[in-house]
Amino acid sequence: MIDRTDALEDFTPYLMNRIIARYNKGVEDALAEAGVSVAQMRALAVLAQGGPCTVNELSVLTVIKQSTLSRTLDSMEAAGLIRRVAETGDSRFRRIHLTDAGRAAHDRAWPAMTTMRDTMLSALDPQDRETLNTMLMRIFYDIRHHDF
Amino acid sequence: MIDRTDALEDFTPYLMNRIIARYNKGVEDALAEAGVSVAQMRALAVLAQGGPCTVNELSVLTVIKQSTLSRTLDSMEAAGLIRRVAETGDSRFRRIHLTDAGRAAHDRAWPAMTTMRDTMLSALDPQDRETLNTMLMRIFYDIRHHDF
Repeated sequence: MIDRTDALEDFTPYLMNRIIARYNKGVEDALAEAGVSVAQMRALAVLAQGGPCTVNELSVLTVIKQSTLSRTLDSMEAAGLIRRVAETGDSRFRRIHLTDAGRAAHDRAWPAMTTMRDTMLSALDPQDRETLNTMLMRIFYDIRHHDF
Repeated sequence: MIDRTDALEDFTPYLMNRIIARYNKGVEDALAEAGVSVAQMRALAVLAQGGPCTVNELSVLTVIKQSTLSRTLDSMEAAGLIRRVAETGDSRFRRIHLTDAGRAAHDRAWPAMTTMRDTMLSALDPQDRETLNTMLMRIFYDIRHHDF
């Protein structure tokens, strides 16, 4: 679309914002065809691959604001994809669990995510992909232990 | 904050979304102290380092929706930071130019951005940072030539 040389392309966070914006748009389009929202897919992925968690945790892990996420979880509960289970009788601390139907929905939709991931990374060979992921993991574990 | 092992950490776009969300939050906080919004800073950076462009281009380059960006540009124009200059008498194709005051605002605020970038990348030595940026650039140039 725009093809002039990009003055900010040495600025790593700029590149990451540009790449991830385009990736997220691609995911939104791909999932829309499958009738799943991005927020739902992220919640399904975190719950299926990481296990039950609170809405606070899920908000961080899905990078979705709590207000948006709460609405998403309401619709997922109504559709029978998740259950909210109170911990030790305190309804403020409920954990969100995937139902069998939720897991099935995850398993149906996840292949579209790996396809999008592979499209995003198609410029890199398998070894470079591994190197990239390792570097991103080092950044991730470093910054999560700081007040940024 | 949340320290359990992250089941999705092999999924590169997930890591990028988590990292960039935290980085963007850090930038928002740092710029708030300087009285600049993230949208303003992105517009200043693209215009100062890339030159004049249309609102369409600026929307892509700043990763900000046109509706939000238009309001940001209104406030920047009112503050004397930018000018909108009509091309060949057609007011639909106006280019946005930085004023001298806009360039000065950029030069004052930009060091905070490089500081945040360095904080984000502090787990990596200079050579790894270079490698990371090069790989991201390859991804970026690859995906921008596809319909994702």
